[in-house]
Amino acid sequence: MLMTQLRSLAGTALRSSSWTVCLLLAATASAQEADFSALTEAQSALNAAPGLRQVPGRAIPVPTEGVSPAMQALIAAPYSPFWAATGESPDEWRAYAEGASAAAEPALADLREALGVAMEEATMGGVRVFVLTPEAIPEAHNGQVVLNLHGGGYVYGGGVGGTYEATLMAAYGEYRVVAVDYRMPPDAPYPAAVDDAEAVYRALVDEGQDPAAIAVNGTSAGGGLALSLLLRLKTEGLPMPGGLAANTPWADLTGSGDSYRANEWLDNVVVSYGGYLDDAARLYAGKVNLAEPGVSPLFGDLAGLPPTLLVSGTRDLFLSDSARVQRKLRRAGVTAELQLFEGQSHGQYLFDPAAPETREIFVEIARFLDAHLSQ
Amino acid sequence: MLMTQLRSLAGTALRSSSWTVCLLLAATASAQEADFSALTEAQSALNAAPGLRQVPGRAIPVPTEGVSPAMQALIAAPYSPFWAATGESPDEWRAYAEGASAAAEPALADLREALGVAMEEATMGGVRVFVLTPEAIPEAHNGQVVLNLHGGGYVYGGGVGGTYEATLMAAYGEYRVVAVDYRMPPDAPYPAAVDDAEAVYRALVDEGQDPAAIAVNGTSAGGGLALSLLLRLKTEGLPMPGGLAANTPWADLTGSGDSYRANEWLDNVVVSYGGYLDDAARLYAGKVNLAEPGVSPLFGDLAGLPPTLLVSGTRDLFLSDSARVQRKLRRAGVTAELQLFEGQSHGQYLFDPAAPETREIFVEIARFLDAHLSQ
Repeated sequence: MLMTQLRSLAGTALRSSSWTVCLLLAATASAQEADFSALTEAQSALNAAPGLRQVPGRAIPVPTEGVSPAMQALIAAPYSPFWAATGESPDEWRAYAEGASAAAEPALADLREALGVAMEEATMGGVRVFVLTPEAIPEAHNGQVVLNLHGGGYVYGGGVGGTYEATLMAAYGEYRVVAVDYRMPPDAPYPAAVDDAEAVYRALVDEGQDPAAIAVNGTSAGGGLALSLLLRLKTEGLPMPGGLAANTPWADLTGSGDSYRANEWLDNVVVSYGGYLDDAARLYAGKVNLAEPGVSPLFGDLAGLPPTLLVSGTRDLFLSDSARVQRKLRRAGVTAELQLFEGQSHGQYLFDPAAPETREIFVEIARFLDAHLSQ
Repeated sequence: MLMTQLRSLAGTALRSSSWTVCLLLAATASAQEADFSALTEAQSALNAAPGLRQVPGRAIPVPTEGVSPAMQALIAAPYSPFWAATGESPDEWRAYAEGASAAAEPALADLREALGVAMEEATMGGVRVFVLTPEAIPEAHNGQVVLNLHGGGYVYGGGVGGTYEATLMAAYGEYRVVAVDYRMPPDAPYPAAVDDAEAVYRALVDEGQDPAAIAVNGTSAGGGLALSLLLRLKTEGLPMPGGLAANTPWADLTGSGDSYRANEWLDNVVVSYGGYLDDAARLYAGKVNLAEPGVSPLFGDLAGLPPTLLVSGTRDLFLSDSARVQRKLRRAGVTAELQLFEGQSHGQYLFDPAAPETREIFVEIARFLDAHLSQ
């Protein structure tokens, strides 16, 4: 195994043309075999009693097998510069969020142009939405609509700047997509986001849209909000949508998942729950307990939800949320499938519209919905 | 997040009645907030350039949310005492393997008794098999049979001592199970195991068993061998079985998966590829290259395989093998679902027949096969 690791490291060194590193690695191989024995002994001693798992510091190479070059570049990237961008005041949160959305707008206009997606602003149920329509909609998707709930930790992703995922869903999934510009903290904490999502859902149904031909889709906070919306619909006796794509959902705002620790510092997108996430969670929940099912739908009764697709990556800080939502849905008798990607961090399938994995996951979502939505 | 971690640690401390630890944790909380900032800076500096991910050493608590107490105990356990048990000579490998199998026999007799499973030894296609039959077989499973390929890194799990998984499949899945006692190294390296699995499959079909009502099931090396068997059947133009359960399959003996490094020292079952696994891989492959598809089916052409269920855990050293097999199957147009368990290490769902997760996964496999096997 050590030699496998060294070969892998040597491969990385070669790709970066760093022959010095490569030669050094070869020269230190036998020394490192001895190091491995020493590490084995030290690790066995540290893990000799039941309980905490003691894991040593490590340098982990970029995976190459079964990962596209575009995705390898994303996996290799330094930590996102925004992972610890916590607002110290309401104004600072607003400034961060507005800045991020404004910065995204020109690139999104280019993306719509490149992918042939049209966008229209509208109001549904009193809530601002963006309707994204691809050049052509296949006949099977004609009467269907995807209700999209954007991600961004319940603080980022508002406005036109939050229509990125909805654009990809329209283009690669080939659906008419209604993207909800739900209200967010610091101005509107929970339950404003759920209220807005529900209002748009109700408006769609009131317009005559068959609920069984509606899919709800969201990533991260959008996936968590999608689950919260469905719990709300159940409570209010409204009809369920035909399917749900909860992509690496932030379903537990208390941060109790094992991967929140196991994949800490490994995930290069959200990096650590101690960055902006735990602060965003408290800002969103306001005076409500973080374990309240409306805020953390993992703790709700998930029986009666529609067939659900989950998506995650092996380095995802939120991997445990996908695992636990899947288990809880299955134990409640709900169809719950999971698509897992090698080496990806949180929501990384979204980051490069040209990466083959990006198109792949939207096509996976569409195939899953084809099996479950009414036509 | 730090407070969440501390609460989690405090919970562990309370459960172990170690009030001293708990008080110490509370007292050091503010010091640790400062530590977190220092760690953030250090980590950002270490990960400022693209490439290797630098991850610091950490102490990771046992997950409790959505995990049964029985499974928590398995997750909390020290490293398996056998993870580094590498034979230094053929005789030593034989001694390890025979010792492990002999040690398991009495417990397996008790397990069959407790679960009402009957076992018969037989020969099929010249290969020794064990046929395991539950007290009652549901009508839907009447004409079906599960061909079980045991795990154990291609070196362990021979003889009666290797019938554990097959026993659980018979009891919890409610199937007639044919467990193949395939030949293994050091006496019989690759392709002996594939030859034996094929011989039993052919014998079943020659007996008049409908191939579409056969499921192939295996965990770890057994999951990898199952994939290799299917590649062999395809090459020889034999009919495919109706379904496959490749549970955390060892599909890549070169060890190139990202989780082989990311989950190293976190997984408490196989712990590190540098334990017995890389040696077992070489022993099994003999003179064949480890990347040969017969040995590492991940590198084969997986088109035409039957619907496949994969199973893994978030701490599984082999998590990437499940992710990559899923992706490769999906890209080849094959149904490939994945069931993921919170906090579990490699094959940990198998370790306690009384853990709810153990029954759960065999029932999941049965429900998957119900949707795909002929009746």
